[in-house]
Amino acid sequence: MSWQLVNNDRREEQLLVNESLFALGNGFLGIRGNFEEGYVHSNKSVRGTYINAFHDITDITYGEKLYAFPETQQKLLNVIDSQTILISINGRRVAAGEEVQMERTLDMARGQSVRKLSWTDQEAGQTIVTFRRLVSFTMKELFAQQVEIETEREASVQISTVVNGDVSNFSDPDDPRVASGHAKRLTVEQTDAGDMLSVTCRTYESNLSVHCSAKSALSTAAERKVSTEAGRAKETYTFTSSGKTVLTRWSVYTDTYRHGEQLTNQAAQLLQACTSFEETAEAQEAYLQQFWSDSLLEIDGDPDLQQGIRFNLFHLLQSAGRDAVSNIPAKGLSGEGYEGHYFWDTEIYMFPFFLMTRPDTARQLLKYRFSLLEAAKIRAKEVGHTKGALFPWRTISGGECSAFFPAGTAQYHISADIAYSFIQYYLVTEEQAFLTDYLTELLTETARLWMDTGHMKDGQFRIDDVTGPDEYTCIVNNNFYTNAMAQYNLNWAAACWELLEEKDAEALRGRLQLEEGEAASWKKAAEHMYLPYDEKLRIHAQDDTFLQKKVWDLASTPKEKFPLLLNYHPLTLYRYQVCKQADTVLAHFLLEDTADEETMKRSYDYYEKVTTHDSSLSYCVFSMMAARHGDVEKAYRYFIETARLDIDNTHQNTKDGLHLANMGGTWLALVYGFAGMRIKASGLLFRPVLPKAWKSMSFRIRWRNALLEVRLDKDKVRYEALDGTLTFRHHEDTISLKEGEFKEIPLHEG
Amino acid sequence: MSWQLVNNDRREEQLLVNESLFALGNGFLGIRGNFEEGYVHSNKSVRGTYINAFHDITDITYGEKLYAFPETQQKLLNVIDSQTILISINGRRVAAGEEVQMERTLDMARGQSVRKLSWTDQEAGQTIVTFRRLVSFTMKELFAQQVEIETEREASVQISTVVNGDVSNFSDPDDPRVASGHAKRLTVEQTDAGDMLSVTCRTYESNLSVHCSAKSALSTAAERKVSTEAGRAKETYTFTSSGKTVLTRWSVYTDTYRHGEQLTNQAAQLLQACTSFEETAEAQEAYLQQFWSDSLLEIDGDPDLQQGIRFNLFHLLQSAGRDAVSNIPAKGLSGEGYEGHYFWDTEIYMFPFFLMTRPDTARQLLKYRFSLLEAAKIRAKEVGHTKGALFPWRTISGGECSAFFPAGTAQYHISADIAYSFIQYYLVTEEQAFLTDYLTELLTETARLWMDTGHMKDGQFRIDDVTGPDEYTCIVNNNFYTNAMAQYNLNWAAACWELLEEKDAEALRGRLQLEEGEAASWKKAAEHMYLPYDEKLRIHAQDDTFLQKKVWDLASTPKEKFPLLLNYHPLTLYRYQVCKQADTVLAHFLLEDTADEETMKRSYDYYEKVTTHDSSLSYCVFSMMAARHGDVEKAYRYFIETARLDIDNTHQNTKDGLHLANMGGTWLALVYGFAGMRIKASGLLFRPVLPKAWKSMSFRIRWRNALLEVRLDKDKVRYEALDGTLTFRHHEDTISLKEGEFKEIPLHEG
Repeated sequence: MSWQLVNNDRREEQLLVNESLFALGNGFLGIRGNFEEGYVHSNKSVRGTYINAFHDITDITYGEKLYAFPETQQKLLNVIDSQTILISINGRRVAAGEEVQMERTLDMARGQSVRKLSWTDQEAGQTIVTFRRLVSFTMKELFAQQVEIETEREASVQISTVVNGDVSNFSDPDDPRVASGHAKRLTVEQTDAGDMLSVTCRTYESNLSVHCSAKSALSTAAERKVSTEAGRAKETYTFTSSGKTVLTRWSVYTDTYRHGEQLTNQAAQLLQACTSFEETAEAQEAYLQQFWSDSLLEIDGDPDLQQGIRFNLFHLLQSAGRDAVSNIPAKGLSGEGYEGHYFWDTEIYMFPFFLMTRPDTARQLLKYRFSLLEAAKIRAKEVGHTKGALFPWRTISGGECSAFFPAGTAQYHISADIAYSFIQYYLVTEEQAFLTDYLTELLTETARLWMDTGHMKDGQFRIDDVTGPDEYTCIVNNNFYTNAMAQYNLNWAAACWELLEEKDAEALRGRLQLEEGEAASWKKAAEHMYLPYDEKLRIHAQDDTFLQKKVWDLASTPKEKFPLLLNYHPLTLYRYQVCKQADTVLAHFLLEDTADEETMKRSYDYYEKVTTHDSSLSYCVFSMMAARHGDVEKAYRYFIETARLDIDNTHQNTKDGLHLANMGGTWLALVYGFAGMRIKASGLLFRPVLPKAWKSMSFRIRWRNALLEVRLDKDKVRYEALDGTLTFRHHEDTISLKEGEFKEIPLHEG
Repeated sequence: MSWQLVNNDRREEQLLVNESLFALGNGFLGIRGNFEEGYVHSNKSVRGTYINAFHDITDITYGEKLYAFPETQQKLLNVIDSQTILISINGRRVAAGEEVQMERTLDMARGQSVRKLSWTDQEAGQTIVTFRRLVSFTMKELFAQQVEIETEREASVQISTVVNGDVSNFSDPDDPRVASGHAKRLTVEQTDAGDMLSVTCRTYESNLSVHCSAKSALSTAAERKVSTEAGRAKETYTFTSSGKTVLTRWSVYTDTYRHGEQLTNQAAQLLQACTSFEETAEAQEAYLQQFWSDSLLEIDGDPDLQQGIRFNLFHLLQSAGRDAVSNIPAKGLSGEGYEGHYFWDTEIYMFPFFLMTRPDTARQLLKYRFSLLEAAKIRAKEVGHTKGALFPWRTISGGECSAFFPAGTAQYHISADIAYSFIQYYLVTEEQAFLTDYLTELLTETARLWMDTGHMKDGQFRIDDVTGPDEYTCIVNNNFYTNAMAQYNLNWAAACWELLEEKDAEALRGRLQLEEGEAASWKKAAEHMYLPYDEKLRIHAQDDTFLQKKVWDLASTPKEKFPLLLNYHPLTLYRYQVCKQADTVLAHFLLEDTADEETMKRSYDYYEKVTTHDSSLSYCVFSMMAARHGDVEKAYRYFIETARLDIDNTHQNTKDGLHLANMGGTWLALVYGFAGMRIKASGLLFRPVLPKAWKSMSFRIRWRNALLEVRLDKDKVRYEALDGTLTFRHHEDTISLKEGEFKEIPLHEG
């Protein structure tokens, strides 16, 4: 059961949610779970096909535009639609109407979704139509469909399939989290219908082309007609069925980014390799078998939760870009929320899962960020810095896409977050080439940003006028999270130059124009970094003045007023102690050596009372830190909120796409939370605890050349080196395991 | 000389500036100084006619729209153009080309502008064409023109006049201070050409109509043809001239706000009264004679400065709305900068001139603000307050028109500024009816805003997340200016309820639902108001953290980088100690009892070093406070910047309209600055000083029922009660004068 998601609800609202839940993708191509034949009653559907990073450039309009506000933004486009398969049986159009039974399943072991319709009528008797679809992990361009039509009696059948280039993006002017305009951004350049159907489209401004070619095969003889019209290529089969008929259909997508100029040829070539749905499905299953083995994460004692976990990991896999131009959009490739932009969500919430289970993907994600370094240096200059790299708050191809700088560009921590993920990668892999080729340069340029942003005053290094992760308080001085992350960034930037071999250092020093004493100045700034602390409350202050503000009365705020951002003017939110998400608590999670246990605990207790969790990035952090502080049951309660957030649509906006960062957060909460994993300069560390509700929990991670399996039972934890040799700590104890060895340690109730 | 402004420069740039400088208006109607015949070379002109408060409603587009961001704004419209008079002499079109001499004069004593063209050609000999125009102070709807054509020899002449309803606003997408879209907002509803020419237009959204009817009279017999076409009504006279011919033309504007629905009838009626340009001109001169007598302000020793002063007072008179729906736009009625919106500029910079010289106009300006109180209460609720009135940062009819809240809605001080002007009015006039009908209610609702915005913490009343006058630092806690003004507001709100007679208090208490202890809570908040003070520098801190920031290196900033707001991202500006304008210094000016002399002086010295004066609201404040601190020569240097700012176009944007607040600032700098006037609960006070450059300075003000003339000479000051009886202080000495009495007091060099 935990391998499948089943949902047969056909109410309009849930259909939109299911479009996201049943979305299929492979990091390159994403296709929402729309019905091949469309809906019967609803006229609302976000019918979407997306290619990661495939975007147009649109103007940003401001009521009042100030200097260096970005003038354009990038927007992930809904590309050519090749989902449509229309079927008529005895002249009656097949659609999931009231008299039709429907069963819909997402199979996460096989990477397919299946939708089965069945009904009985006088003429044809019982009819069963089964749609299968997959987006291939082994051929990234491929979307494969199979339709099985089974009639009890002989029937006249017509099947049409369509490749449609006349597509638009979805827009909603009332929600700041969804795009509000620029819906139509693709022009159809060519439409062909022969043996294959194919459509090529070009963007209005970004000068990118996308192509889709589709071919199909029918298990029975039929008349086939083709046509093109208004940007659509269509084919129609007409035949008489008796028993079972199967239509197999392959659609292949190519785009300028990955396939240069020869989009049509390359698509045709790829299509040639597609011959059997069964073979494609087998390859898909084999790929997933490896994935589920590498990223094993099992809980004994709660099937619903297990389902949620699998669902979240499955979508992480489906969403992560694996090439030089793409990353993980905030909604994956499952919807248009946040316009396909990449945020810090990747580095802080999703990257660790890939880092510890699929280091190749992790490395590719970092290489993508590194490719934006030049753009970040230009952006820093635009904003007014003399040096350094300021990464954009939201972007696809490197330009800042945020139109509201207090909660966008002002989130300088993005640059430190990226630096943090680079450091983590180095700590886990110890790749010297990474240090030389990427890490040192990235940390140098981000360190330079902090030096130019902050300033020394009365012996303290201070960073003014930035926004921390919590967007309910914007443009503040000395945000604890930002300062602590900048400190880590600065310290590590200096450390890189010490870790480099001299010949590499020399070459880099010239290229990066490292000045005499520059690294020393970073160390000094880090050493004197001001980390606001309230002497009375004995907690870290979120910023210079947060704790001086009024406390929002959360208990008396009516339920319908949440999320607060949709019900209060930002000034009202800024004026109170109220947090959208974990901010200081997140810093304590990422950088636990910044504070002593008691300060972290008191801070947790304080901020928990003023946090609304209006951001889906919040729960997992509170879960992990509850586990850290020994409150396992609270950790469990927060964890529950993450694991099924989308399946249960608890944030009410899953229709716009899945909450990928929260999905990453599920994994974090289990591995960093309950298993208490940390990655430090001193190595790998565990401090495991197990919630009462579970009998056991197991997971696997990679550490350098080793594969480690960890299993938590009620009374013990078992570490086993499935592959390679590794050393790590369990609390204060150092454990070394050779390949095949394991060690069991008793667990005491928390 | 000082009564006239002459400018014959015909370069494109200066022509645009001159359109603002030579603008004529009367508080209702404003017409830019465009050429009747248009320009010869330039194709850039802001041809503008404005009716105060006559606006359309336009959508505001946001790249990212958050809760309670205003969805629409109001925009002052360029209305029907009736300036055009085209003349041909012997088939040659009259225009101020290169071979034509031009003299252009604004006559501030007579309230006219005159433009004289002269040239010689073979056929007609010497020809002189003189255009005169005025916007009447005695009939607010009237724009009168007279053209005198004098040819040396007989010539064939054609004169056309046009009333044009096909007009648009000016737009500039690159400057945040000018509108960037929505240029066309008027539809022509009717066009007639008979004895009169007339056009009626209607706005797209605000449902307002504007009408213009024009009639003309020619001093000689002529053929007259009329036509209508594309929103224009036109008449053409054809005749043979010998010697002098005079065309007189009257255009009358009516609008929905002031004339209800009978726009055409009322215009026709008004036109009937227009019979002689000379009579109209005489009435104009008589009106101005009274104005210049009431607002006498003379400096002996600097004619250029005297010209600047007259120019500024003249434009203040031309710009102030005197009816229930209008106020003073930031650019007067001289251009489209800031879209005709009303800001705090009125209350803090312009109102005092009217208060002390034309109390009727002052009262009308306050009544206009009072009429927006209900809208301000609604806005407070929208933003998230439970009570109180939050006045909009910029508005015409009461709705917030700011599309950038950190420097708009966040400027909560606007509500205290309005309260301050109401209090000043009461102090000067002591009108009991004003206390009962306006003052108490306005102060009660603004006091409630402060109570709901601020909060008591550790014995201090604190106001978080507002923006003070200085827009180079936004969204701060405890802005000194805001807190000090709120304190004054709260104290006076409580005082009102004590000043009221019991029967009035009882009625108001019910209507305003004053709660038991509410006034006492205001007093307590005021008493505990937190006014940030830096113990080390011993100055008032601009806000909680301003003095902790980096100091901007103004000396090393290249000239072309000013104004900074057009060259740096707001975050960069926020991050430094750098001020666009006086902030804390302004508070010390308005509320001198908030600080001791030494604190004010030290604060002045400190903030002066970090202020760019990028706002035209800055110089006058630094001038006044320099005078206050005894540095008369510095006061003089700052003053110089104010008096001729527009005439010399020192801010490079006079083309968009005049800087009305700075014009008010000129008067403030003379009367509050050099004469050291203050209005306090204890009465009227002077501390006069005279700059070395001047032989003397004289001015008149009204105080309750008296008219006082003050004359500063090198060695003495002379106070004379021209009318009525009054008591005031000169430094510590109390002086009482009966009508006709004067008192001379020796002045010591500063």
